[in-house]
Amino acid sequence: MSAPDESIPSMPTPDIIMDFGRLQRCGIEEAVFCEFKRSEQIEHILSLAKEKQHRLLLTRLTPEKFVQLSESWIRQLEYNPTAHCAVFGDNVSLAAPTRIGIISGGSSDASVCEEIKTTLNFHGIGCDLHQDIGVAGLWRLQERLPVLRHYAIIIAVAGMEAALPTVISGLVNAPIIAVPTSVGYGIASGGHVALNACLASCAGGVMTMNIDNGYGAAVAAIRIYKQIVG
Amino acid sequence: MSAPDESIPSMPTPDIIMDFGRLQRCGIEEAVFCEFKRSEQIEHILSLAKEKQHRLLLTRLTPEKFVQLSESWIRQLEYNPTAHCAVFGDNVSLAAPTRIGIISGGSSDASVCEEIKTTLNFHGIGCDLHQDIGVAGLWRLQERLPVLRHYAIIIAVAGMEAALPTVISGLVNAPIIAVPTSVGYGIASGGHVALNACLASCAGGVMTMNIDNGYGAAVAAIRIYKQIVG
Amino acid sequence: MSAPDESIPSMPTPDIIMDFGRLQRCGIEEAVFCEFKRSEQIEHILSLAKEKQHRLLLTRLTPEKFVQLSESWIRQLEYNPTAHCAVFGDNVSLAAPTRIGIISGGSSDASVCEEIKTTLNFHGIGCDLHQDIGVAGLWRLQERLPVLRHYAIIIAVAGMEAALPTVISGLVNAPIIAVPTSVGYGIASGGHVALNACLASCAGGVMTMNIDNGYGAAVAAIRIYKQIVG
Amino acid sequence: MSAPDESIPSMPTPDIIMDFGRLQRCGIEEAVFCEFKRSEQIEHILSLAKEKQHRLLLTRLTPEKFVQLSESWIRQLEYNPTAHCAVFGDNVSLAAPTRIGIISGGSSDASVCEEIKTTLNFHGIGCDLHQDIGVAGLWRLQERLPVLRHYAIIIAVAGMEAALPTVISGLVNAPIIAVPTSVGYGIASGGHVALNACLASCAGGVMTMNIDNGYGAAVAAIRIYKQIVG
Amino acid sequence: MSAPDESIPSMPTPDIIMDFGRLQRCGIEEAVFCEFKRSEQIEHILSLAKEKQHRLLLTRLTPEKFVQLSESWIRQLEYNPTAHCAVFGDNVSLAAPTRIGIISGGSSDASVCEEIKTTLNFHGIGCDLHQDIGVAGLWRLQERLPVLRHYAIIIAVAGMEAALPTVISGLVNAPIIAVPTSVGYGIASGGHVALNACLASCAGGVMTMNIDNGYGAAVAAIRIYKQIVG
Amino acid sequence: MSAPDESIPSMPTPDIIMDFGRLQRCGIEEAVFCEFKRSEQIEHILSLAKEKQHRLLLTRLTPEKFVQLSESWIRQLEYNPTAHCAVFGDNVSLAAPTRIGIISGGSSDASVCEEIKTTLNFHGIGCDLHQDIGVAGLWRLQERLPVLRHYAIIIAVAGMEAALPTVISGLVNAPIIAVPTSVGYGIASGGHVALNACLASCAGGVMTMNIDNGYGAAVAAIRIYKQIVG
Amino acid sequence: MSAPDESIPSMPTPDIIMDFGRLQRCGIEEAVFCEFKRSEQIEHILSLAKEKQHRLLLTRLTPEKFVQLSESWIRQLEYNPTAHCAVFGDNVSLAAPTRIGIISGGSSDASVCEEIKTTLNFHGIGCDLHQDIGVAGLWRLQERLPVLRHYAIIIAVAGMEAALPTVISGLVNAPIIAVPTSVGYGIASGGHVALNACLASCAGGVMTMNIDNGYGAAVAAIRIYKQIVG
Amino acid sequence: MSAPDESIPSMPTPDIIMDFGRLQRCGIEEAVFCEFKRSEQIEHILSLAKEKQHRLLLTRLTPEKFVQLSESWIRQLEYNPTAHCAVFGDNVSLAAPTRIGIISGGSSDASVCEEIKTTLNFHGIGCDLHQDIGVAGLWRLQERLPVLRHYAIIIAVAGMEAALPTVISGLVNAPIIAVPTSVGYGIASGGHVALNACLASCAGGVMTMNIDNGYGAAVAAIRIYKQIVG
Repeated sequence: MSAPDESIPSMPTPDIIMDFGRLQRCGIEEAVFCEFKRSEQIEHILSLAKEKQHRLLLTRLTPEKFVQLSESWIRQLEYNPTAHCAVFGDNVSLAAPTRIGIISGGSSDASVCEEIKTTLNFHGIGCDLHQDIGVAGLWRLQERLPVLRHYAIIIAVAGMEAALPTVISGLVNAPIIAVPTSVGYGIASGGHVALNACLASCAGGVMTMNIDNGYGAAVAAIRIYKQIVG
Repeated sequence: MSAPDESIPSMPTPDIIMDFGRLQRCGIEEAVFCEFKRSEQIEHILSLAKEKQHRLLLTRLTPEKFVQLSESWIRQLEYNPTAHCAVFGDNVSLAAPTRIGIISGGSSDASVCEEIKTTLNFHGIGCDLHQDIGVAGLWRLQERLPVLRHYAIIIAVAGMEAALPTVISGLVNAPIIAVPTSVGYGIASGGHVALNACLASCAGGVMTMNIDNGYGAAVAAIRIYKQIVG
Repeated sequence: MSAPDESIPSMPTPDIIMDFGRLQRCGIEEAVFCEFKRSEQIEHILSLAKEKQHRLLLTRLTPEKFVQLSESWIRQLEYNPTAHCAVFGDNVSLAAPTRIGIISGGSSDASVCEEIKTTLNFHGIGCDLHQDIGVAGLWRLQERLPVLRHYAIIIAVAGMEAALPTVISGLVNAPIIAVPTSVGYGIASGGHVALNACLASCAGGVMTMNIDNGYGAAVAAIRIYKQIVG
Repeated sequence: MSAPDESIPSMPTPDIIMDFGRLQRCGIEEAVFCEFKRSEQIEHILSLAKEKQHRLLLTRLTPEKFVQLSESWIRQLEYNPTAHCAVFGDNVSLAAPTRIGIISGGSSDASVCEEIKTTLNFHGIGCDLHQDIGVAGLWRLQERLPVLRHYAIIIAVAGMEAALPTVISGLVNAPIIAVPTSVGYGIASGGHVALNACLASCAGGVMTMNIDNGYGAAVAAIRIYKQIVG
Repeated sequence: MSAPDESIPSMPTPDIIMDFGRLQRCGIEEAVFCEFKRSEQIEHILSLAKEKQHRLLLTRLTPEKFVQLSESWIRQLEYNPTAHCAVFGDNVSLAAPTRIGIISGGSSDASVCEEIKTTLNFHGIGCDLHQDIGVAGLWRLQERLPVLRHYAIIIAVAGMEAALPTVISGLVNAPIIAVPTSVGYGIASGGHVALNACLASCAGGVMTMNIDNGYGAAVAAIRIYKQIVG
Repeated sequence: MSAPDESIPSMPTPDIIMDFGRLQRCGIEEAVFCEFKRSEQIEHILSLAKEKQHRLLLTRLTPEKFVQLSESWIRQLEYNPTAHCAVFGDNVSLAAPTRIGIISGGSSDASVCEEIKTTLNFHGIGCDLHQDIGVAGLWRLQERLPVLRHYAIIIAVAGMEAALPTVISGLVNAPIIAVPTSVGYGIASGGHVALNACLASCAGGVMTMNIDNGYGAAVAAIRIYKQIVG
Repeated sequence: MSAPDESIPSMPTPDIIMDFGRLQRCGIEEAVFCEFKRSEQIEHILSLAKEKQHRLLLTRLTPEKFVQLSESWIRQLEYNPTAHCAVFGDNVSLAAPTRIGIISGGSSDASVCEEIKTTLNFHGIGCDLHQDIGVAGLWRLQERLPVLRHYAIIIAVAGMEAALPTVISGLVNAPIIAVPTSVGYGIASGGHVALNACLASCAGGVMTMNIDNGYGAAVAAIRIYKQIVG
Repeated sequence: MSAPDESIPSMPTPDIIMDFGRLQRCGIEEAVFCEFKRSEQIEHILSLAKEKQHRLLLTRLTPEKFVQLSESWIRQLEYNPTAHCAVFGDNVSLAAPTRIGIISGGSSDASVCEEIKTTLNFHGIGCDLHQDIGVAGLWRLQERLPVLRHYAIIIAVAGMEAALPTVISGLVNAPIIAVPTSVGYGIASGGHVALNACLASCAGGVMTMNIDNGYGAAVAAIRIYKQIVG
């Protein structure tokens, strides 16, 4: 939907219940999924966070929607245009050493990889990115194997036929979180083939997220990470 | 397919490559998925395991198929008819304390729950079962919450509309592995609605397995467990 | 389709049969579904209503399409931009007490909630809105339970995995009308997962409407309401 | 799955939580969905009900499965082979007058109609059946209209292209609960076309149940009925 | 795709084989389906027709695409903006009496109805339009029945749940050609529910076209018509 | 479902409304679709027909179901085991000349072809069968073309990728009724690919029936035939 | 469908057109797809072949159906029960050297592999089988690479998530024909995930066959082979 | 996505691994699939190619995206706007004689045909195009048959119901690579019907590519071609 022009009636902001207590209850910070929200709703939520002095992660905030926010809010946000994420509030330092590796099949998957990284970093957790190492050119994956074998958690991001999670699962011991992406065309359009291939993996123990759900993969990894590091 | 009658020509056993080195490489024991294998193939694999003195887990072995095995093999297997699993070789003692909880929506999901438990136990890992606590009667889940909050990993098994993983995910900190089951009819027939509901969960971090994939959920849990306990 | 520019030939308005006798026959006022109608068709229908001195409810009238109507019509309509609804004619007073409660999973479902409210109010029936109380944060729903238990009819609006109708159905006695919404992405894109989860609900008696069909849910509630209040 | 032969190992009965308090909480009696349960599970549940002196409704109990129950249980059940339902415990008398009408498209839908009737009667609520009045022969429906217009609730059962709920909805004021059935072949196989046609109905206010979900339709009707009769 | 701007390289016109001999072979005039063709391709085809002095019917030519044609061609075409059709060449007079009736469920189906009418008229065959007589308000259809019973062929156009072809088929003797339309939302989005309902019709002998295929329905009717009138 | 054994409780026959007046109203004789009916229901219908001295066509009556009828009824029926059809009552002589041609892609489509033929013959209308002339061996179709061009109506029966209706439609003038069949495997399993290929045909005017709906194709042909022969 | 019992009426054999000239026209021998044919039809075809002294390949002939053929025909056929294929007529010697390699993901794919081999051998063309080398255990594939790189054509057979064709395609130069199999469960049931993964392969040039279509893969390979060897 | 306006933050280019060694390993030049890449990514890749002095094929580069590249790059690329392809680097001369024929069903398939041709030519391999010879007008195909029978490889491109690959496969000996296209509407929208019809082809040996995958078809043809010409 294009930006509403001036003559369109302004809409009242419906009541929104922010869950700023979630960190205490679940160990996960409050995040706002912006895809189905209008600018006014996002700005209203930011006001609430500012008032309560809470940090906030905004996901699925496209560059087009970001620039529609008021100048004042744009200045107060740290925006990652590849990740389609913005952070309100201070950055936190990352715990060492890095225990999470993110691998991806192609450079078109970059947006999902960055959403995962931004979400992890927002929670003070570091990660390494290994992009564009899909199995159609197996040597790219094999070169990285010695490094990949050291991670405690691996998040495998892939579109098209998404063979990457299956192949990596047979090569390492770590838990594998698969994130199928919507990169694909024809029969693979929208990411459903990638999703199904992850679910059907003959390699034992691949765990799958919804298509393009980088945020969810990061939260899943954080839950595991917190059990590991205590 | 009913059992082939005597006059049907017997089939030669194709070459099978057993991966008895998997334990060393991946930390997971060799298992045999029996659903698409004939009795002769299963017996051939058992012979190989016996010869190499390897333990073996047989999954998706229905009671009907189990009783078609030769008397000799039936005697050497420990069979769990609800789990549709059989174990060849000695049991191993379970590590304490129990860190994994399995919860299920209804008593019709018992087969998948037992497959998970059998697989975990085969690897020397204990677990608790909390069955029939689906969200249509929320009090059943709420009663168990104090216990559920102590597990390091929760595996949530549910058919029909599979709301259980979403609800539990908002109530505990542990990583949640969702296993949709094929329990359902009409639009929910085959378990696709349950699968999709798990993937679409608005609760952050639910990780999903293929429909009825109890074995895979157990392997995923083992990978996480080994990172936690070192 | 973008607005046709001036040089595009104007189209003759096809014959339209307005059913202004429906109130007598079915107890439901005439409403106009605007999504597949052009501005000229909508204005033509308004003229007919004005001529016959009939009230009219316009649904699925986006802000973009609303502002394309002629200035004269815009002034004569009461427009709710969140509901995408406009009312032509006088408001009617609402019957007391309020017997219908509308609950929704997230603030992104606001448009459907408002369409339901507008339709009910147009027929002189009041309702309460309880938004953003989805089951991923169960405490939000539980806080409202004492109030929710007093309604004669509950309309539950939810997207994503739509667990809300199932959970509420186990907690109250009232009939539950579920309205799945198109809020979702990946596998949940378009609202099909929400729809199927409502239909597959293991909680007895959930009745389901088409995706985003707030108007239909209101009409169903009116039919029930009229049986209750006589 | 055919009945297990004698040599198949017997399975332990998993823990089952009966919800005999549901009548107090929700106004609906406990019912047991038998489709995915084995004979032993059903007999175990019956024992619990007998012990607690509770009435019980068994649904989706096919004649094949019914005759596999022990002779003793068969004698204690009142079985309706068309409805695939059995009642344990005393019948209750039906409240007058009859307020619920069930209509169906064809004689092949009889099983679903009878499941609805059995469920309503089990709760002490009467209903009338008007079967085989599908819209391909519209005169059959029109003949019944004077009667149909007197019901407070109408449940419309139809397979194939399921036009019946749409047509009846335009002819009466009562709330319409649509139950699509799995009667159909080719593109209509399994009842998905019937389901979708009910959901897509252009007639306002049709409420839809899952395919063949006669039990759910009856529970929905009971919830409405209790609001009407107080 | 928006109109290419000036700086986009122009594309060579690929070889196109016009089938101007089709009238002799099949009794159907040459028509051009414009939806997947660029303006240059359409103009090239018009040039070929002009050169050969052949009449031409252009279908699926949206107002947006029509105004992109050169001024010269626009002047030589008779354009019907509702039908999205244009005619090149002289009109032919219509044979009497009218033997074909077109009925539609709602005014949103007007575009398909007009495509059918334009195609029939282009071949010198008349027809009557009866729009907005869907079965949710059955009285509208019943009023027209005496007229509808006189047609030799009926084309029934309907979106949403498309019950119209089923109902009319039980009321008249003529062959029924059903044209499902893409008018619908949610589960009915794109017209698939309408299509499937036509195919699954329990009324004997309904023949179905692809979604929105008004042109094809007209050609089918012409084939039948020519057999009837000799 | 296998035949119920003796100990299964017998079911009461629900009320069935036979439409013996259909011949007068629609020109089509009463037929009984047996697929979803039990033996008792079929025998009950036969009794009604015998009582009223009406002819009856039984379709979708498999050999397995046919032999379950009582000896007495089996003797009174003329059964075509390939067509899965039985006729009760006298045969009628066929009108000359033959105006309808049935063509099929492969010998596996024989059942549908025979259902069409039996239905036409039951109504006193003759037809010719041209089987096994699919387009993968185009010479088979081309050899028959001179004959095929003389029919007033062609019914094209095909499974798999169902290219036959498209190819024949470009070679003759007659109306084409396409009947996709369930002959196919893998992606073509159940006949959905054949159905969709018929609907998507780029050849103008192909009219499509539901999968395996030979009866419906015959009824459609009869409606056209009656318009042609007056 | 179980074997028809004796009392079921025998069915006349419809006309079958055998294409014994296909070898001359297309280089491919006549083959008979038995899945949808009854025993009588198969025996009739064998009689025709014997009469014309033609060799014949029977595919999709299950052991259950094979033993239903008359004793006389069983003796004259060479049957491969894993391949579900039978050969009528003399074997031909295989051309050297072997240019075609068949690889498969798991031992459950053996039936499809053997169908390919039988078809190739029937045409006098040899091949090597490398089974059970799926990518979940990548070392199995890598061990075979030096051999696999020498084939002129590789046929890759895989079920589940079917990553094998993608991985092999990046490692060799030969054309790759992918055959997805129906081995899979849950979301992968029926082989659709495997099919889609092959089609969506990000590795350039993978060519895909229908699910389980071993015969078709062999014919495709023969067409390529004949171009290579002249 | 429309072109980002000036005020949108620029995005850093993620690491891209170009596989310039692929020609040596697989015989296929490096190509870049541009559909999911932004202008900056494409320009970055071009810079790498220029630096390494490598030729490069850009596919799925729409005219809209092409003109967004910087003037400097536009001048250095040879762009084919119908094929949506651009070539960086020198052309190579084509090997004689031409062994590959491309045939297509309609002129709307031109884009895919040109992508195939551009890819083949980029690798120094010639081909002939025979467009608009679909089977609805069979004479067009038959006229070309004498020429088509001389190709060593045929690539058949078709949308809608895609009967062309099936028909051509029965008329020539060469291997057939089918490329379904997204040309179609209603049920055929997106090309899925065309895809499935190719896969389900009853003609032996048709090999299928993903929808619109002209590049992949060319690579498959090159792999076969290199085996033929050595």
